[in-house]
Amino acid sequence: MSFTLQQSQLLSPLIGDSELALLFSADADLKAMLDFEVALAIAQAKLRIIPQAAADAIEVACKSFRVDEANLKQTIARDGMSVPGLIAQLRQHIEKEHAHHLHFGATSQDAIDTSLMLRAARAFDILNKRMREISFQLTGLVERFGQNALMAHTRMQRALPILVADRAASWQDGIDGALNSVEKCLFSVQFGGAVGTLKEFGNQAEMLTRELGLSLGLGFPLKNWHTQRGPVFELANSCSHLTGALGKLGQDYCLMAQNEFGEVKLSGGGTSSAMHHKQNPVQAETLVTLARFNATLVSGMHHSMVHEQERSGAAWTLEWMLLPQMIMAAGAAARIALEMLKSTLAIGSKP
Amino acid sequence: MSFTLQQSQLLSPLIGDSELALLFSADADLKAMLDFEVALAIAQAKLRIIPQAAADAIEVACKSFRVDEANLKQTIARDGMSVPGLIAQLRQHIEKEHAHHLHFGATSQDAIDTSLMLRAARAFDILNKRMREISFQLTGLVERFGQNALMAHTRMQRALPILVADRAASWQDGIDGALNSVEKCLFSVQFGGAVGTLKEFGNQAEMLTRELGLSLGLGFPLKNWHTQRGPVFELANSCSHLTGALGKLGQDYCLMAQNEFGEVKLSGGGTSSAMHHKQNPVQAETLVTLARFNATLVSGMHHSMVHEQERSGAAWTLEWMLLPQMIMAAGAAARIALEMLKSTLAIGSKP
Amino acid sequence: MSFTLQQSQLLSPLIGDSELALLFSADADLKAMLDFEVALAIAQAKLRIIPQAAADAIEVACKSFRVDEANLKQTIARDGMSVPGLIAQLRQHIEKEHAHHLHFGATSQDAIDTSLMLRAARAFDILNKRMREISFQLTGLVERFGQNALMAHTRMQRALPILVADRAASWQDGIDGALNSVEKCLFSVQFGGAVGTLKEFGNQAEMLTRELGLSLGLGFPLKNWHTQRGPVFELANSCSHLTGALGKLGQDYCLMAQNEFGEVKLSGGGTSSAMHHKQNPVQAETLVTLARFNATLVSGMHHSMVHEQERSGAAWTLEWMLLPQMIMAAGAAARIALEMLKSTLAIGSKP
Amino acid sequence: MSFTLQQSQLLSPLIGDSELALLFSADADLKAMLDFEVALAIAQAKLRIIPQAAADAIEVACKSFRVDEANLKQTIARDGMSVPGLIAQLRQHIEKEHAHHLHFGATSQDAIDTSLMLRAARAFDILNKRMREISFQLTGLVERFGQNALMAHTRMQRALPILVADRAASWQDGIDGALNSVEKCLFSVQFGGAVGTLKEFGNQAEMLTRELGLSLGLGFPLKNWHTQRGPVFELANSCSHLTGALGKLGQDYCLMAQNEFGEVKLSGGGTSSAMHHKQNPVQAETLVTLARFNATLVSGMHHSMVHEQERSGAAWTLEWMLLPQMIMAAGAAARIALEMLKSTLAIGSKP
Repeated sequence: MSFTLQQSQLLSPLIGDSELALLFSADADLKAMLDFEVALAIAQAKLRIIPQAAADAIEVACKSFRVDEANLKQTIARDGMSVPGLIAQLRQHIEKEHAHHLHFGATSQDAIDTSLMLRAARAFDILNKRMREISFQLTGLVERFGQNALMAHTRMQRALPILVADRAASWQDGIDGALNSVEKCLFSVQFGGAVGTLKEFGNQAEMLTRELGLSLGLGFPLKNWHTQRGPVFELANSCSHLTGALGKLGQDYCLMAQNEFGEVKLSGGGTSSAMHHKQNPVQAETLVTLARFNATLVSGMHHSMVHEQERSGAAWTLEWMLLPQMIMAAGAAARIALEMLKSTLAIGSKP
Repeated sequence: MSFTLQQSQLLSPLIGDSELALLFSADADLKAMLDFEVALAIAQAKLRIIPQAAADAIEVACKSFRVDEANLKQTIARDGMSVPGLIAQLRQHIEKEHAHHLHFGATSQDAIDTSLMLRAARAFDILNKRMREISFQLTGLVERFGQNALMAHTRMQRALPILVADRAASWQDGIDGALNSVEKCLFSVQFGGAVGTLKEFGNQAEMLTRELGLSLGLGFPLKNWHTQRGPVFELANSCSHLTGALGKLGQDYCLMAQNEFGEVKLSGGGTSSAMHHKQNPVQAETLVTLARFNATLVSGMHHSMVHEQERSGAAWTLEWMLLPQMIMAAGAAARIALEMLKSTLAIGSKP
Repeated sequence: MSFTLQQSQLLSPLIGDSELALLFSADADLKAMLDFEVALAIAQAKLRIIPQAAADAIEVACKSFRVDEANLKQTIARDGMSVPGLIAQLRQHIEKEHAHHLHFGATSQDAIDTSLMLRAARAFDILNKRMREISFQLTGLVERFGQNALMAHTRMQRALPILVADRAASWQDGIDGALNSVEKCLFSVQFGGAVGTLKEFGNQAEMLTRELGLSLGLGFPLKNWHTQRGPVFELANSCSHLTGALGKLGQDYCLMAQNEFGEVKLSGGGTSSAMHHKQNPVQAETLVTLARFNATLVSGMHHSMVHEQERSGAAWTLEWMLLPQMIMAAGAAARIALEMLKSTLAIGSKP
Repeated sequence: MSFTLQQSQLLSPLIGDSELALLFSADADLKAMLDFEVALAIAQAKLRIIPQAAADAIEVACKSFRVDEANLKQTIARDGMSVPGLIAQLRQHIEKEHAHHLHFGATSQDAIDTSLMLRAARAFDILNKRMREISFQLTGLVERFGQNALMAHTRMQRALPILVADRAASWQDGIDGALNSVEKCLFSVQFGGAVGTLKEFGNQAEMLTRELGLSLGLGFPLKNWHTQRGPVFELANSCSHLTGALGKLGQDYCLMAQNEFGEVKLSGGGTSSAMHHKQNPVQAETLVTLARFNATLVSGMHHSMVHEQERSGAAWTLEWMLLPQMIMAAGAAARIALEMLKSTLAIGSKP
């Protein structure tokens, strides 16, 4: 279950990301939940938990399935989530004798969390790739301008002369740290059944989770994470680490771009409806905005760790409202930082 | 400039609000900015700042204008906001001799902030109306069930017997407080020109702002609020006050709906994909979620008070990412609380 | 129950406030809780709920009472609050025949919340007074430097020339808004008894609350606010409004004080352990810090609105950890802003 | 520079931690800064950067030094930090010929950040130890009560029967995750000099940092972290991870301890000033409070990643106001959770 504010609106070109937006559309979410159901059926057939014919029927049905959106919306409003309604629709679409094998032993949370992880994994690949490009771009900047003089500023006052390479080394360090944080994130299948115990699978439970993870390209922890939200907590922290590191870069660019400093020259730049001489460092400002956006939202993800009993509707729904936005903000920040570095014509103190 | 995550996605039936969503669509934003431009031209013509013919031409043009969305998106990415591109398109659409009178003496922020206020004013009318309905509904509940016994709980332990009316009085108090907060909000025109001084209008500045406010049905403060974000800060606090008060109601319903308590009986209720006997108090949980959502986002609106110099791109853009979502969350909470109260079949301790 | 981090440590001269610290010491809290108990007894004697002799004995005992701190700490750890242990100690100190009249019909929350309100009321008087002094000081600055030229900056770029008076008008507006917010805060007695109903007082309950409020100089709402935390929520928002408005002032000073701008000249200024030529705008920076501190903490106060049933230990304790710090931060910001304005030797663009 | 609100006040027995408080006292901070200065002098003497006699004199002086607190407070208010004043006092205390070798090539931030890391390292050792004890205690609980029946609850509704061991496995998982996060934290020396470049040390810079780190028992990263606040950001996330995991445990205990559930029996428990029959689950509630406290404060630590240029007074000071409190909250949560588990007399559904 995922969606973001950065999609499909006037502001999407500014703070959105068309590549990541595809991952957090309703379609992508539904698609990933169907992938979960298919992978589950295949794994269960392999372990002889359900008949192979049922798994085949489920796979065929999921591939040709077209959701009844109006009906789904009604059931979402009633159930607080998409899965019960989706499964009911899907079962109508499968031959009767196989229908009850769909979603066997699984719970809504298994499908929803796994769908999120499938798409987050792809999103983080994109973040990773972009951060490497940023790093590469920054290396190029240092090669070109690294030996230019720059005045260090501490507490916003002129301190001592440094080189552009010195400040850039700090940016690089921030990017490396964020990249490292992105790379350490784990993407695990969720599979716990109604109350997290998988009791109906007996000693096949572990093997089934393993099969499911392998087939979806996700990790397969020994214990599901229904109520221990470490995995999504880490994703949120990483997104904010990334936007924070790029927010520092953006803030520095804003300050260097002040006309009184003239320490950075950018091509492009925003125009003003009232002052035609202006060239605003819009990208740099937006990096600061995105850093503060994620620094704000991350707090709610930390609150969501207080997840009562075997499943908290309240805490879980809060994650849905926050995490996709945070990932999108990270993607937008990486996209914008890359553009900003590429548009940098010169850095260094005015001689 | 406005948009929300609660629109047009799978989750909108759960946490969205179709009535408020119309106010925070890109279309509604563009429409309100055009209303600003027309009202400005009319007011300026009235004060003989621009020719009446120009105002007429601007009005006609704005009414028949169809935005070139692709081009607008490009300019938004460049400028960090919609207005410079929108004005450029609009000017193409007005006879040449009048085109330069459009947006005369105004700045992008004037159009964007005023558009927000126009739509927030309508949104708050809706919030107000819903809170009154909630209050009315609660009064009805008290009439029906108020004399039923209920066990008071403090620190989640049984305390002493009270009546349903006693607990309901506390809910009513919270609703009254939130309603009062919603009612106190002011919706003011924004008009300050390029750097907030309106110098080009000399001693007509105040009169012009007054005309503009009157014609748009908004307040007209002596001083613009370009950099002092009190007005949007108050809206954010009110939205969170409302969701907080309803979050307390939702939390109480969650606890009363526990099977072990059985203190509230609801019609409807969410189903589970794994456990068919369950009836989940989805609305009550969602009220808690929405309260924590706004409690999280409000922090960023407070950070946005640190708005540097004559206009902060970074702080202002952060508002755009947060406030519409907060208003939508308030609307959804009011909608859901009303439904929840209506679906209440009984309250009181099990005899 | 109150305390703050800004007290008695190395950082108190920087971000603390010795005048407000006195209000949020353990001593002041205990003193205010005793004031509550005395006022309650007197009011109850007046309404013939308890004997006059008991009220007299309680008054005498409270005046000569010395707390056994070690014992109190033990009971606080057990009870999660100070009152049960405090009342137990106090009762030992009152003649046996009168002891049970102490705290009659009251609950711990009544004493703790009222103690907070008594001290917050004094704190807000101090905030009010300081904000007026800031306003006065700013008026003086405008008289001296208001006609100096200043370059307006929007999105951190040079925009158009304005006057110092123009930017100062925006600061003044922020200060007025914060002052208005501080002035609107209400300080009400808390009195609800064990479960908020005051049932044992029958139709005397309202009169008793009125007497209690009048004698303590606090408001006396018809309904207690045990579970509807609007009153403390408003205090938190006001504190953050104040620090936000002064944070904007501080941020502007930081930018104006940049050597490349040289738009403000301050006496004093911080020294550096490594660079002896530097004069850091420490006060201006600290205003930004305090704004972001309160913008962070306010979120927890909004979460505390989700206050379950008749009393939430979890939500209430969170307020204790946040609100006193926020009030202290507001006090420190007001103190620092005043000093900063006083130390301003000149404002305006370098000619 | 460190201090916390949880020290030395009425609430310290409830939410404080006397063992950790010692690490975050002003004394401990000063002591650790002196340790930094001594280690720096010794390392510099070893590398022949300063004379051995100077290092000896510095060591002797630091050991016998008694701070002039009144003077220090004045310089802190002026400089925004303790080090310039502290170094000035120390230099008075060292023979003149050696005094200028003190703090050679270092900057205030080096001493302050290193002092924080020295004490955080010890604090995290304590957190680590306590989390292991919690884990051990929980294992014991499972041995005793693991096979007791418990009713699983999802969305706060009765779901299906599980065992106490099942729910405990989820708690264990959360504790393991938090412990893992605590263990991964790195504690690195800070050494960058005035503007982060260590230029005056030429090719000895790296060796010097290494010596310094080794002698203080801290890591020695290739690049200082003056402006890239990853190391403190990670500490904050870990503290909130820990309180979040224990907050989930606390929330579950609160729900299980409801009289209507009676699923957990605790010895002790808080008393009420109004209702003598009550036994409040104060520890469980406090765990929820501490989780929400850290979830709130962590947001400010993420904002502090936006750290401008070579040193941000505003962002850095915000860390001082937040991080020590977060570590203390983590310590208190670990202490309280351990006590709560120890006081657990029974868990499981009522038969």
